[in-house]
Amino acid sequence: MIGLVTGLMLLQAAGAMSSGDVRAAAEADADAWRTPDPENLVIMEFGGEQVLIELAPHFAPQTVENIRELTRSGYFDQTSIVRVQNNYVVQWGAEEEDVQDGTTGAAPNRGTARDRVPGELDRARADEDFTSIDQRDTYAPTVGFSHGFAAAQDGNEQWLAHCYGAVGVGRGDDVDGTDGSSLYVVTGHAPRHLDRNVAVVGRVLDGMDAFHDLPAGSGELGFYTAGETKLPLDDVRLASELPEAERPHVEVMRTDTALFRDWVDTRANRTRDGWFVRSAGAIDLCNIPVPVRFPDRDEGAN
Amino acid sequence: MIGLVTGLMLLQAAGAMSSGDVRAAAEADADAWRTPDPENLVIMEFGGEQVLIELAPHFAPQTVENIRELTRSGYFDQTSIVRVQNNYVVQWGAEEEDVQDGTTGAAPNRGTARDRVPGELDRARADEDFTSIDQRDTYAPTVGFSHGFAAAQDGNEQWLAHCYGAVGVGRGDDVDGTDGSSLYVVTGHAPRHLDRNVAVVGRVLDGMDAFHDLPAGSGELGFYTAGETKLPLDDVRLASELPEAERPHVEVMRTDTALFRDWVDTRANRTRDGWFVRSAGAIDLCNIPVPVRFPDRDEGAN
Repeated sequence: MIGLVTGLMLLQAAGAMSSGDVRAAAEADADAWRTPDPENLVIMEFGGEQVLIELAPHFAPQTVENIRELTRSGYFDQTSIVRVQNNYVVQWGAEEEDVQDGTTGAAPNRGTARDRVPGELDRARADEDFTSIDQRDTYAPTVGFSHGFAAAQDGNEQWLAHCYGAVGVGRGDDVDGTDGSSLYVVTGHAPRHLDRNVAVVGRVLDGMDAFHDLPAGSGELGFYTAGETKLPLDDVRLASELPEAERPHVEVMRTDTALFRDWVDTRANRTRDGWFVRSAGAIDLCNIPVPVRFPDRDEGAN
Repeated sequence: MIGLVTGLMLLQAAGAMSSGDVRAAAEADADAWRTPDPENLVIMEFGGEQVLIELAPHFAPQTVENIRELTRSGYFDQTSIVRVQNNYVVQWGAEEEDVQDGTTGAAPNRGTARDRVPGELDRARADEDFTSIDQRDTYAPTVGFSHGFAAAQDGNEQWLAHCYGAVGVGRGDDVDGTDGSSLYVVTGHAPRHLDRNVAVVGRVLDGMDAFHDLPAGSGELGFYTAGETKLPLDDVRLASELPEAERPHVEVMRTDTALFRDWVDTRANRTRDGWFVRSAGAIDLCNIPVPVRFPDRDEGAN
């Protein structure tokens, strides 16, 4: 990989590299990609669509373990999409009143899942686990990526950022009263003010369009009301529950490589495709998609 | 208004003010609102929904004048929604190939609209027209609001920001080849790298949900392909074309008042509703909705 990176750096020095160039280089470089642990890969089906979510155990280990247990036990299969608020979130799993009351633990099909898990809003700063993108950010002193997830840190702590596609845990007023039975995904402009107020537990790798196809709820904050039909979740499981041959073959671009830094640079300096007349010379953390590819399918999505 | 603002500042000093408090104070204060010029108010109907757009002549005077003429002449009434890309834009008006070729001037119902208007990507910095929000921003040295629109400036120039709801002008590679016949609205995370690459000419005041209801296009960049049905625009006109009694009665919160600065402050420091456990102490320019109200309807939207 050293030779490749050196080559890219020369291209960049000549001002000749584009996002497409980096993407093409990445396609040819197996080391630029990682395969998510099947224990961290949730396959969710509803309305004939399939969504893939990668969980983030490094940041929310207890909540992620509870989500795994709820998934394996069939908890989510008996739930629905409960909320669609345009440019904000889609939420599924436990009914809102149960989340508020902290009574989700009474539902069936929970296996050994705990009723309450401490709110895992951030963790101790771990520089060795963090690739800074060296960009000014409104909300945090330093932003970048950790284990493939958009993240931020200050002098003491590190946390995942509420970017488009981030998956978080619905909760009531009690920050330690969550159990992972209520989940939401960010579907619009990053609500970064939620950072460290809710545990981010993963991100959607594929299938975001399925959330955009859902009609907005008419209730407050986009919750569906009694008169509205909630779309049920048909099947939610971990990839690790499937025989190896049936697991989705998905790969995610590593975020701890020189190639990824080149990817960020070209996103920040888009001028080469003939259309841009002025490079921003900067890039918002949440405007950096981490590429995902499906070697069995095609050239990849995202 | 002085007395009111003083009262709010006392509340704030005591740490007692919330967004709801500011909104309530604003509702009682007629001076906190402005009524858009009917020459700047576009009423667009499609699929049984109505969208209101306020044009921004201070930033794109020639393009806005052309859009007014195209609207009055019935140009847009013969066009459709041509592109829906989730978390990015919905685009309408001229067909994409005509935008690329610069051949939109050949279409009928253009009145005296010009075929080409210079790209109005920014304007000379005008401090007296700018309310800074004093927030760190990834893309610009200073961000804030001007004439009610999210804006940014550097030492020399000032421009409108691509926030959710911003309306911009589709163009091909020629930056001076636009005529305002192709328009788009930002429907997701702010693509601020488009700032100063495209002219922003206004923003949606009401009706964003209508754009979210549209199915994504299956072509590249979300353009509809030959096999897909494009939803036609049923009626597009300026409020000034209607008798005064039939114009939408809409008011927009002024962005050049002490009350608006309080609004921004409370958005940046949300802790008081019992749910937030940590205030961000900051707010992204594009996470500050400028409130809109409809005195004839209800308590207002947005």
